[in-house]
Amino acid sequence: MQKEITIYDIAKQLELSPATVSRALNDHPAINQNTKTLVANKAMEMGYRSNMFASNLRRQRTKTIGVIVPRLDSAFMSTVLSGMEKVANESSYNLIISQSLESVTKEIANAKTMFDSRVDGLLVSLASDTDNLDHFNTFFRKGIPLILFDRVIAQKNCINIVIDNQKAGYDATIHLINQGCKRILHVTGSLKRNVYADRLRGYKLALLEHGLTGGAELERSTNLTRQDGLDLVNYIKSMAIPPDGLFIASDFCAATCITALKQSGFSVPTDIAVVGFNDDPVSLVIDPGLTTIHYPGQEMGEIAAQSLINHLNGLLRLSTTNTILLNHELVVRGSSQRVVSQSTLP
Amino acid sequence: MQKEITIYDIAKQLELSPATVSRALNDHPAINQNTKTLVANKAMEMGYRSNMFASNLRRQRTKTIGVIVPRLDSAFMSTVLSGMEKVANESSYNLIISQSLESVTKEIANAKTMFDSRVDGLLVSLASDTDNLDHFNTFFRKGIPLILFDRVIAQKNCINIVIDNQKAGYDATIHLINQGCKRILHVTGSLKRNVYADRLRGYKLALLEHGLTGGAELERSTNLTRQDGLDLVNYIKSMAIPPDGLFIASDFCAATCITALKQSGFSVPTDIAVVGFNDDPVSLVIDPGLTTIHYPGQEMGEIAAQSLINHLNGLLRLSTTNTILLNHELVVRGSSQRVVSQSTLP
Repeated sequence: MQKEITIYDIAKQLELSPATVSRALNDHPAINQNTKTLVANKAMEMGYRSNMFASNLRRQRTKTIGVIVPRLDSAFMSTVLSGMEKVANESSYNLIISQSLESVTKEIANAKTMFDSRVDGLLVSLASDTDNLDHFNTFFRKGIPLILFDRVIAQKNCINIVIDNQKAGYDATIHLINQGCKRILHVTGSLKRNVYADRLRGYKLALLEHGLTGGAELERSTNLTRQDGLDLVNYIKSMAIPPDGLFIASDFCAATCITALKQSGFSVPTDIAVVGFNDDPVSLVIDPGLTTIHYPGQEMGEIAAQSLINHLNGLLRLSTTNTILLNHELVVRGSSQRVVSQSTLP
Repeated sequence: MQKEITIYDIAKQLELSPATVSRALNDHPAINQNTKTLVANKAMEMGYRSNMFASNLRRQRTKTIGVIVPRLDSAFMSTVLSGMEKVANESSYNLIISQSLESVTKEIANAKTMFDSRVDGLLVSLASDTDNLDHFNTFFRKGIPLILFDRVIAQKNCINIVIDNQKAGYDATIHLINQGCKRILHVTGSLKRNVYADRLRGYKLALLEHGLTGGAELERSTNLTRQDGLDLVNYIKSMAIPPDGLFIASDFCAATCITALKQSGFSVPTDIAVVGFNDDPVSLVIDPGLTTIHYPGQEMGEIAAQSLINHLNGLLRLSTTNTILLNHELVVRGSSQRVVSQSTLP
């Protein structure tokens, strides 16, 4: 490897003092703009690298933020990451990313790697089988801030960024009730995770308030995959009395289900009205358009990164703020909107 | 911040020598398993961090790989990143990610940040308006390996990982011709980028070989967004003779277009057969299913990361391999398969 270029090398080439070069590179007000430009161009030409790395080491800061998510290949998570990258980049932080692949074993290994990499802080959304935060104790003990987002466990000294999933589940269900649905089937994910347990709670609350029946037959806990969407249609066909409304906790699964329902002769929304969750791009592509809960993924990513950076800069103490709740929104499209006068039963 | 725990602190607590602790932590064969477990547990309990960071600094290696992509919130890019993370994680490398947001200006800034962060190597997919690789000269001069993937510019000392986009464009078009299409419209992205320019070339070649007419009216360069998919349907409706085949260089845009075509009274595939590109999840959700080119995103991410790590470990010299071509595959679904006996004209 080539020898590292220093400010002394640049100074020699430009016949300037090393102090001038250093001040020019650090945008010092005493140095005029022409000199700054001259030094910057020469530094670039010679391949000079600022000593950020070494200076961060001295300051015990790496200017990196670790991110652990369940899966990278998810439409929702990719918008969250996009928001995090935007904010981190603007504040000159690097993002180190890793995925748990929904396994607590991998999440524990990821946490250890992040710790050894000396990240300044950590942003985490939990795997589907994580039971507690013990694997982050090394961070807590060292005072390294940890922010949980989306999939969280409430714990002291650890900020949570979420939407009100119970209210969102309630809003989705009330909307179906308002469209005339009397028998609403809810399809959800692992009930270990707040996001799914809370949506189910909201669904039950809405039924209760309107004197509608729920029960085991109308609650399905799945992995919310495409196959689960297809299996659901077979389940519906096997029911003595099929549902007239579906609330599915993921848009991709809901969209798959709508296509399969139509292919099985059900009319959407006339026979079965459908509401999804997340407002993924797919909800706009299918026909009819999918009614869903808009989940502010980009904003969640931005706020998570900004809160962490503010904490690191002493502008916000995480311990004083335990939960940040973001607004969700019901977006009504064709999959649930019933026009009473037009019956299009198959 | 709490004082950093050293091997001396662990040694004192366990009444072992620092050398034994150090060897236990480094999995030295002379230390028995019980002692290794004892030391590992105590190290975890006390919050010991391996000195990877300082030792990497001494070795002038950071064990980090920089990744610059056009957009993080893309279905295709999220599968690529997932593949990169998998391989990097297995080899104890960290991934630092950033996005250019399709702007060369931001890409230049990202490159500088990566350089200053002393990444060991860089994986880049270019922004839509990047004209050359000058902003990576600092890397080339320092011998820091750069691998371009998907959106590339051919250059010495710089490995490219791509699929054969011209062949893929050719395959898509030939498939439409085999389904009886005589007037095929091609919708593509920025022709500055190899991926789109090559697909267009393949399309033209297929038309030429079969004596079919192309020309400006049948070639549309867009941003391949949802809106572009909707605009396309208006364009088709405005044509004196509408096309009977569509080859669209992105699945999401193609899926949007199919839904809008059906809403405008066109039958897919009978009136217009449609082929997309990428094999995004959306291609399975819409009705009819979207015929597309399967693009091995996860595999591309894995191979890009592995090639870079092999180079860093001296197992593969990048300069001897200039391009790695991955296989694509035509996946035929309902959107292009014409069943001659069933006419379902609206």
